[in-house]
Amino acid sequence: MRMDDQYAEQIPVFADILLAKSRINGQIRATPVLSDPQFNEKLGCEIWLKCENLQRTGAFKFRGASNALAVLAENGVDGDVATHSSGNHGAALALAAAVQKRRSWIVMPNNSVKTKVEAVRRNGGEIIFCQPTQQDREQGLEKLLDKGCIPIPPYEHVDIISGQGTAVVELAEQCPDLDVVLTPVGGGGLICGSAIAARALISDVTVIGAEPEGAADTALSLEQGKRVDHFDVDTIADGLRAIVGGMNFQIIQQTVDRVITVSDARIIEAMALVWQYFRMLIEPSSATVIAAIMASPGDFSGRRVGAIISGGNVDLECLPFNQ
Amino acid sequence: MRMDDQYAEQIPVFADILLAKSRINGQIRATPVLSDPQFNEKLGCEIWLKCENLQRTGAFKFRGASNALAVLAENGVDGDVATHSSGNHGAALALAAAVQKRRSWIVMPNNSVKTKVEAVRRNGGEIIFCQPTQQDREQGLEKLLDKGCIPIPPYEHVDIISGQGTAVVELAEQCPDLDVVLTPVGGGGLICGSAIAARALISDVTVIGAEPEGAADTALSLEQGKRVDHFDVDTIADGLRAIVGGMNFQIIQQTVDRVITVSDARIIEAMALVWQYFRMLIEPSSATVIAAIMASPGDFSGRRVGAIISGGNVDLECLPFNQ
Repeated sequence: MRMDDQYAEQIPVFADILLAKSRINGQIRATPVLSDPQFNEKLGCEIWLKCENLQRTGAFKFRGASNALAVLAENGVDGDVATHSSGNHGAALALAAAVQKRRSWIVMPNNSVKTKVEAVRRNGGEIIFCQPTQQDREQGLEKLLDKGCIPIPPYEHVDIISGQGTAVVELAEQCPDLDVVLTPVGGGGLICGSAIAARALISDVTVIGAEPEGAADTALSLEQGKRVDHFDVDTIADGLRAIVGGMNFQIIQQTVDRVITVSDARIIEAMALVWQYFRMLIEPSSATVIAAIMASPGDFSGRRVGAIISGGNVDLECLPFNQ
Repeated sequence: MRMDDQYAEQIPVFADILLAKSRINGQIRATPVLSDPQFNEKLGCEIWLKCENLQRTGAFKFRGASNALAVLAENGVDGDVATHSSGNHGAALALAAAVQKRRSWIVMPNNSVKTKVEAVRRNGGEIIFCQPTQQDREQGLEKLLDKGCIPIPPYEHVDIISGQGTAVVELAEQCPDLDVVLTPVGGGGLICGSAIAARALISDVTVIGAEPEGAADTALSLEQGKRVDHFDVDTIADGLRAIVGGMNFQIIQQTVDRVITVSDARIIEAMALVWQYFRMLIEPSSATVIAAIMASPGDFSGRRVGAIISGGNVDLECLPFNQ
């Protein structure tokens, strides 16, 4: 579906996701899908975790970044790349750039999770810290662009969304006949790519987003029928603090059935549950999907749910739950 | 190969492993195999992690316990089951018993990892704590057997070894043409099953064990050509503190090429590396395999190595490394 609006030239379609998949297949990890009968029984539905926490750089973001840089290379565009990121997109871009022997510059909020800061550094990214506001992040990036860096946006771009959508292409192969595809909602890159892929591949699928109450700008925007561009953000889910992108919001309006909001307490409970049943540490942003099932069981009861576990980059020394 | 000795009736052959696989396939999780180019580059070989840390109950032990209880059920044997275990076999037995609506009793050393104690409880096992010596573990179990419980030994049993061997059957399918199969060595259940499966399925394979220096009874036994039955154990690898089983040692002598010993410092370094590159927390016992590659790179250089990551049951509040 091409949409007739200001973003018409840029909105991804399913073919873009398939192209992305062919570009990045050798570079990304085809992540496993895990399920557990006891966990299913506890939550009242059949849950398949698509483990992007086990993706290279510990998050799905490596898919989008790899695709965006593959497109640059295809087009013969040389030069340093830059972005702003709370961490996962930054680490992903740093590694995708390093693979191509490019330099990368990442503007990061000074309250970023330490694990994510170190991942950016380990992958060869140069970090510029900023205040943790959307405005400061964007200003930091502007300065880099003035110096000639190529911007690789974290979520509002056809190549990024298409790359993120490849996770659902894999998921639909690994786990046929899903009733529901469920992803976190932050800037909207993951849910948009997922929704486009899911609608193309899975008949009668329901696409649901999970958003922290403390960063529920997308749920509020859907309610108001119009994107809000400010929200007083307060959530443990550090990866979901961004405001949904303008194009992303349009795609969400047209392809996503529902966004469920969840409390931080529920997110922490969900992190603990996944640790107990799967021995995986997932980051709070990822845990929103499990929290959504707990918060709104009627949407999932007895159904076959593919849930994207978006990342696993947590700070080990300050886990928010006791085992 | 049936061996002509005191254990001749009990020693597993490859057919036992295939039978085990057909019995437990619906109950165990086919665990993923992960690889990472940066990690490979750092360690100088091509490593495929068989992620039994993502097995149900967080360890490969669920394979052997499931097989042993399936055999009981096939033979119409009712009744409570019992074992001694530092934790992973206990949690595995508890869950395998719960699936069959049996009660289970687990003798555990009073210094067991908290995560493992809680896993046994969550899976419905009854715990009897004992002093952390082999003698006390065995005495605790004797008392349970006197009460009529059926013993399910942790490693020295044909059904247990056969169950553990199923991980390598999967691995050989998931990742063909391995040069080396590498597993931790504790009581010997995993390495024996792995070696029997590997020798049957992979031509010219080298089978290597990894053992902590502070529990190197198997390496010492191989050196002396005779099983030592005492070792002053001192290692962080809580899952490998048992003395190798008598039958297990015989199988190891005949099927394993080498056992490499590793220091606790190296084990901790390996845990941190796996966290950095894979965002998986693996227990110290599992990290011995990566530590062995670091300690003895010449055995692995340029080769294609399948490494069994045996478990992921760590105490989050006392991780031995900084990220």
